[in-house]
Amino acid sequence: MKTVALVIIDVQKGFDDPSWGSRNNPQAEARIELLLSTWRKNSQPIIHVQHCSLESNSPLRPDQPGNEFKDEARPMAGEKQLTKTVNSAFIGTDLEEYLRSCAIESLVIVGLTTDHCVSTTTRMAGNLGFKVSLVSDATATFDRRGNDGTHYSASDIHNIHLASLDGEFCVVRTTEQVLSELASNI
Amino acid sequence: MKTVALVIIDVQKGFDDPSWGSRNNPQAEARIELLLSTWRKNSQPIIHVQHCSLESNSPLRPDQPGNEFKDEARPMAGEKQLTKTVNSAFIGTDLEEYLRSCAIESLVIVGLTTDHCVSTTTRMAGNLGFKVSLVSDATATFDRRGNDGTHYSASDIHNIHLASLDGEFCVVRTTEQVLSELASNI
Repeated sequence: MKTVALVIIDVQKGFDDPSWGSRNNPQAEARIELLLSTWRKNSQPIIHVQHCSLESNSPLRPDQPGNEFKDEARPMAGEKQLTKTVNSAFIGTDLEEYLRSCAIESLVIVGLTTDHCVSTTTRMAGNLGFKVSLVSDATATFDRRGNDGTHYSASDIHNIHLASLDGEFCVVRTTEQVLSELASNI
Repeated sequence: MKTVALVIIDVQKGFDDPSWGSRNNPQAEARIELLLSTWRKNSQPIIHVQHCSLESNSPLRPDQPGNEFKDEARPMAGEKQLTKTVNSAFIGTDLEEYLRSCAIESLVIVGLTTDHCVSTTTRMAGNLGFKVSLVSDATATFDRRGNDGTHYSASDIHNIHLASLDGEFCVVRTTEQVLSELASNI
């Protein structure tokens, strides 16, 4: 079977902090848990990415309880883990070197948040030559305000970012599509 | 005065091809021309990025007339030029090395398209530690369709991408704000 790594980005307790505002895709963590357990059953590689913020007030700082992985995405012994301090999981980490050394060419990317760390990592992965599936219902983001004061909903941000990424940096798929492809690949 | 490089991304004739669909910010090239002439008057560094697509049907392929720079963004002798084949101007190029060797820490980014090459380059620049101003009226994009068939307008895509980038990877500014900052910096 083809090797496909599941890359789980920043699924950490700090994202439950109310300071982030309203979120879309409340089921994303359940989808990630399902993908993770299926990846384990199939002995496919899993990469856990943890954000260790350098910002003074971030709940994702290493000294904050929010730095911990959420229960749905807790790594198991033997699974690759890496920490990062910026949005891209390829900057300041050994991710590219690790993937090349394992001859992994295909990635399934999930996690938080769609338009920040997930988008940035997906863009770099695609531009570095990896084949990426981005899972639309296993990613999520938060409402944001433009610098002109306009309010944008999490779901509009999420959907527009997926439209910009799809076909250019990755293929956007649902959890169901990814699981059915994995099953047909066995 | 502080050194600030103007990075002009993919302002090439191929983007006038009707196959891209409807665009926002028709004045972007005029704004870029104004920024470029001001940068020249101030002897600040200018970096011209040219996309050399590897895709068989792209008007931006090196063997197509659309690969040429638009008149408003034509490089002059002595200005740094680089070509790229992916979205990020930092991948497969010497851009980071060039900026470090010139001790350039601050960038003003303009060009096409907001959500593809401009966003990807801005994200990597910010994550690599550069201070980035992204110019809202000197960038533009095209309508896109999501993989569920939903149509998104160029201006909604543009505005949402700027909202996601602002404060996280860069500061979003208008041409007028950038020019007034440059003037006060002299």
